[in-house]
Amino acid sequence: MPMSKPYVLGIDIGGTNTVFGIVDARGTVIASGAIKTKKHPVFSDYMDELYQEATKLIKANNAEGKIGGIGVGAPNANYYNGKIENAANLIWKGELNLAQDLQDRFGIPVAVTNDANAAAIGEMTYGAARGMRDFIMITLGTGVGSGVVANGQMIYGADGLAGELGHCIARRGGRLCGCGRSGCLETYTSATGVVRTALEFLEASPTVPSVLRNIPSADLTSKDVYDAATAGDPIAQSVFEFTGRVLGEALADFAAFTSPEAFIIFGGLAKAGDLLFKPMREAFDKNALSFHRGKVKILLSELKEADAAVLGASALGWDAMRAANTIGAE
Amino acid sequence: MPMSKPYVLGIDIGGTNTVFGIVDARGTVIASGAIKTKKHPVFSDYMDELYQEATKLIKANNAEGKIGGIGVGAPNANYYNGKIENAANLIWKGELNLAQDLQDRFGIPVAVTNDANAAAIGEMTYGAARGMRDFIMITLGTGVGSGVVANGQMIYGADGLAGELGHCIARRGGRLCGCGRSGCLETYTSATGVVRTALEFLEASPTVPSVLRNIPSADLTSKDVYDAATAGDPIAQSVFEFTGRVLGEALADFAAFTSPEAFIIFGGLAKAGDLLFKPMREAFDKNALSFHRGKVKILLSELKEADAAVLGASALGWDAMRAANTIGAE
Repeated sequence: MPMSKPYVLGIDIGGTNTVFGIVDARGTVIASGAIKTKKHPVFSDYMDELYQEATKLIKANNAEGKIGGIGVGAPNANYYNGKIENAANLIWKGELNLAQDLQDRFGIPVAVTNDANAAAIGEMTYGAARGMRDFIMITLGTGVGSGVVANGQMIYGADGLAGELGHCIARRGGRLCGCGRSGCLETYTSATGVVRTALEFLEASPTVPSVLRNIPSADLTSKDVYDAATAGDPIAQSVFEFTGRVLGEALADFAAFTSPEAFIIFGGLAKAGDLLFKPMREAFDKNALSFHRGKVKILLSELKEADAAVLGASALGWDAMRAANTIGAE
Repeated sequence: MPMSKPYVLGIDIGGTNTVFGIVDARGTVIASGAIKTKKHPVFSDYMDELYQEATKLIKANNAEGKIGGIGVGAPNANYYNGKIENAANLIWKGELNLAQDLQDRFGIPVAVTNDANAAAIGEMTYGAARGMRDFIMITLGTGVGSGVVANGQMIYGADGLAGELGHCIARRGGRLCGCGRSGCLETYTSATGVVRTALEFLEASPTVPSVLRNIPSADLTSKDVYDAATAGDPIAQSVFEFTGRVLGEALADFAAFTSPEAFIIFGGLAKAGDLLFKPMREAFDKNALSFHRGKVKILLSELKEADAAVLGASALGWDAMRAANTIGAE
């Protein structure tokens, strides 16, 4: 029996771009579009454009009436109340009534969550975590995000804000974090953390030659460090060894919490491959409890980079559709 | 309508004693008994005595045919397969087929889990966590145990071994732990951790007077440290300040994981009251993410000390009964 509503709409709201796409049950992005998040100083103007552009896309793909749910990944988006709350990376301040606003415009059930949780749901629905009931998603981007799935369910916590593993303390009294505290995991194992480590290591070993010394500090990126490490630069290689080790140590503690079947690693830094994964796996096995060693999988995300954000968000659209059908709201 | 099976049997298997009790739906222990865990070198002899004594108790209280389920809390007991696996604190080695053995003898559905998870389920069923969907139980005994409840469900993890928060690293490279690793939370915030801290502090401040110096190191207990702290001994007081701080710092990280409504603190050390809770709360608020500060509750267990172990185990008996009814096994 073909589903009467075979598609969902996934929307990923980033600080710079908003991408959206029509997705089918197998995780194929049928069509997608994008608008600039920062273009509209007023939130409702932004929502107007998003609605117009998404509606155009739906019409152009003969998907009118075929979208069963809308899923949105956005910074600080709260699954429980559907709101974006004080997102540091967005230009609109305070509380934004995102889910209700979209539902009013489209007349389709909407669910929202933060980007890392959306990625976890995407991985569970279409990616490396299919069939897993217990896993932890770790996203290594500008910051470090996470999504915890246990008993086959996304863990949102009492307030919708669970899964902030990037803000567990990796080094007590360590690097100052954007959250105002010190030593958070994301100050070490994010793209910006890699740059901080590189600058520290360069300064600590002034006599060791490194191609990174040719790049002004303010311009240095994690990509530069990766390129240098791949080319055999010893400082750059030690940066990835350190980053992988800090991450592996943290994962060992995380495993003691929910005993996951796997960690799924996603995001720009994950592309460093063995440079990161080798020291991470070694540190995990060295630091994990005996029954986790060599047993908990550490996997690379299987969502295609270009589609991942939309896919993650869209996966939540199926949840929204099911929830609406269950309570008879549709 | 009165329930046809209004009782459950709770069994708590400790290293020294095994206690068991008949419990009603309100958490009243109708009657209880105990046997010595260590008395029988052979596991089946122990099970024979346990079965005989529990059956006597059931008959003496006219509860034959009225027990709907049996719940067991035991070291290293695995909810998924019903087995005790290599429990360091028990005299029987290897795998013990605990749940199946009990079910064969009693003809009543059985569920088992470790003691800390049993305590969490007890707290959720009869205690301080009634009505909570997201909380974390922390048991401070000889070691530090924990049980994580999220979305209203006990989190067992992929292998049944979730919730080992006592083995998260509180001080990287710190004290050697019984698990073979270094710096585990339980080496600092257990009863034995308190003694280790006291001995360290006494040695580090040889000129500071303390009544604890009158007790031979090998005989010192956490109770001695508590008594001394209550009497105003400065070293003993600083031991509890340190213990509370290490625990509060750890809870701040744990909150970032599942964003619980509350932590419930249970076990011998919890009786230290404000000596422990004050520095713990201060450290939590100082180290937690901004949206957790002053918001996540830190509560003392509401299970009566004498009944707690049996109550915790018994609560799992209701689960066993429900599960059996759902799948029509009874």
